Amino acid sequence: MAETWVRMVTAQTPTNIAVIKYWGKRDETLILPVNDSLSVTLDPAHLCTTTTVAVSPSFGQDRMWLNGKEISLSGGRYQNCLREIRARACDVEDKERGIKIAKKDWEKLHVHIASYNNFPTAAGLASSAAGFACLVFALAKLMNAKEDNSELSAIARQGSGSACRSLFGGFVKWNMGKVKDGSDSLAVQVVDEKHWDDLVIIIAVVSSRQKETSSTTGMRDTVETSLLLQHRAKEIVPKRIIQMEEAIKNRDFASFAHLTCADSNQFHAVCLDTCPPIFYMNDTSHRIISCVEKWNRSEGTPQVAYTFDAGPNAVLIAHNRQAAAQLLQKLLFYFPPNSDTDLNSYVLGDNSILKDAGIEDLKDVEALPPPPETKDAQRFKGDVSYFICTRPGRGPVLLSDESHALLCPETGLPK
Amino acid sequence: MAETWVRMVTAQTPTNIAVIKYWGKRDETLILPVNDSLSVTLDPAHLCTTTTVAVSPSFGQDRMWLNGKEISLSGGRYQNCLREIRARACDVEDKERGIKIAKKDWEKLHVHIASYNNFPTAAGLASSAAGFACLVFALAKLMNAKEDNSELSAIARQGSGSACRSLFGGFVKWNMGKVKDGSDSLAVQVVDEKHWDDLVIIIAVVSSRQKETSSTTGMRDTVETSLLLQHRAKEIVPKRIIQMEEAIKNRDFASFAHLTCADSNQFHAVCLDTCPPIFYMNDTSHRIISCVEKWNRSEGTPQVAYTFDAGPNAVLIAHNRQAAAQLLQKLLFYFPPNSDTDLNSYVLGDNSILKDAGIEDLKDVEALPPPPETKDAQRFKGDVSYFICTRPGRGPVLLSDESHALLCPETGLPK
Repeated sequence: MAETWVRMVTAQTPTNIAVIKYWGKRDETLILPVNDSLSVTLDPAHLCTTTTVAVSPSFGQDRMWLNGKEISLSGGRYQNCLREIRARACDVEDKERGIKIAKKDWEKLHVHIASYNNFPTAAGLASSAAGFACLVFALAKLMNAKEDNSELSAIARQGSGSACRSLFGGFVKWNMGKVKDGSDSLAVQVVDEKHWDDLVIIIAVVSSRQKETSSTTGMRDTVETSLLLQHRAKEIVPKRIIQMEEAIKNRDFASFAHLTCADSNQFHAVCLDTCPPIFYMNDTSHRIISCVEKWNRSEGTPQVAYTFDAGPNAVLIAHNRQAAAQLLQKLLFYFPPNSDTDLNSYVLGDNSILKDAGIEDLKDVEALPPPPETKDAQRFKGDVSYFICTRPGRGPVLLSDESHALLCPETGLPK
Repeated sequence: MAETWVRMVTAQTPTNIAVIKYWGKRDETLILPVNDSLSVTLDPAHLCTTTTVAVSPSFGQDRMWLNGKEISLSGGRYQNCLREIRARACDVEDKERGIKIAKKDWEKLHVHIASYNNFPTAAGLASSAAGFACLVFALAKLMNAKEDNSELSAIARQGSGSACRSLFGGFVKWNMGKVKDGSDSLAVQVVDEKHWDDLVIIIAVVSSRQKETSSTTGMRDTVETSLLLQHRAKEIVPKRIIQMEEAIKNRDFASFAHLTCADSNQFHAVCLDTCPPIFYMNDTSHRIISCVEKWNRSEGTPQVAYTFDAGPNAVLIAHNRQAAAQLLQKLLFYFPPNSDTDLNSYVLGDNSILKDAGIEDLKDVEALPPPPETKDAQRFKGDVSYFICTRPGRGPVLLSDESHALLCPETGLPK
């Protein structure tokens, strides 16, 4: 083949945060979980992965660049996703450009992949979820696979379990499935992002000196050693999933918050019940929980739910904008930025909530009063790296405007 | 009655630390637990309560002084203990002094009680366990009650659950019991303190700014809200108790350490599974666990077990003196004292272990190398308030030498 065309697709996929947690695999290779989980998709405007995939007869091998740096595709998780998508590839014809790829050709053609997160990978914000979802979604479009997003989610799952939940916007359930090949372990949308659109999400990225246990290692240890995990997976989560779906459908914030907090805490409880024990939350995480719990109690009805993944960062889901503004005041009281920090690099995302909270500059932060529901007026400057304000968001989309592509349309190499 | 005699008894009772934890009551008033627990008694030379009880026809009411300060006896827990012991009082005759108290007189006679802990109450070292055990033991002797220590433990239990385990030395099991009146919920000795006498115990009293949830409130919340507690109590603890008794009888340190650490972690896991969640361990506690886990792993077989009660303090049980000396080196590396601290007020109790560890002064502490099993060489000066070195110890004793009495033999008031 002397052809030199490059065919490209660029997609954008959100990250997600589980409100009923996934922790523990019953099959390590296929990534099949021990229980259902349920997540909220975060607005890709603030947290997303953009991936460009390209195919060309001129490519000599599959290659990938993550945030501008070439990485190896030899890992089983990448190979699983590539193999599964290739197996579903179909004929592609671009008459205009004279490109024709037959179904059988895909086995021989190589792809280039470039992926970029609009948030720091190191922040521990489930970049692999958005990443694998975006990879699978973009490859499926490139290869003209006919599968719907649920079917694609079962492939993304083999890259990173929680990635399957990033194939939809709004609230998404990952059914654990029953069959051995994992084909029924896939994500379905519970409600779309418009269903409950007054929720506001504030993420506190917590400074941490400690290296955390990877979730893969951590959940393996928990499955092998925790005597509480199976009880959670078999007896507790199935009921919670039903209650959570109900709460979301009814926009019942009190139930939603109760279930979200309880399930986050139970996930961390089974981590602690692991041998050796796994600690993802630190003193700052505990302080944030205490702040929210005290406020919720003083109001009589929950204003904010909290949930923590495999790290110390807090994801706080406020009932509405007003609650979010009040929450931000409390958070900035306890965790003011270092004096040399610009407020706009401390409160990221939709920082218009700052205005609602009556905060314009660092002086306003300094002048914040202690939350009235507490006697504890100690402030912890520097213990939070930054906040991200966001909301529930949409699922994957194709970005047809070529300016968004991360690969050069002529060479298929990173721009 | 114009008589003015004062009859006194002074007793000393140890504190204890559970290696299979008590957390959760099935009866709040009688203090009946949801599971058996098992503890090691700590050497009273380093941690104990001394209590003098006195009776005199001249006393107008029951009174008590704790650490020199008068406190109220009106609480249900004190009243329960006083009532139960009075019900078991017998005739007392001291021919030498011409004192004669008939069984029926005890209902009318009042007592004075003075109690003193040889360690800071605020350190969170289960002072109530030693306190109620000592109160009940001393009153029983004063009133010539014929009950054995197991029977007395069922009374001490009604003052503070874990107090029942302080009626014996060595390793002690609290049988949860079955009957409704709690009469079979009492402590029995598993082995005495001579059975496994090479164990060394180092307690790290961890600095904490936070006020902890009281264990009474905490366990009530856990019983009411944790979905994991009942599974722990019914399915996990009964097996662990059998394994732990076996490990102790065989002096099988590997099994002992595994069970002790796992059960401490699971207790904290059910605390975390409580609504609102309860955090007793802080970042310093986590660092101590991490230090021990890494060392145990690097040795291939456990050198040290850790356990944490309702607070951030670590209780570390070393296999023998040599392991304890190595442990102390590691602990002092991570947690050196503030520069103005005298080493003898930083390492308390049996600080001859310092010599075994080759540490004579603060310069030796400064010069300690990082533990070879870790890359993490960061030190946390000031995060531990002090260490106490001790060992398994004996049960309650009477102190017949009147110089130990805390009340004046003439007035029955504090010396």
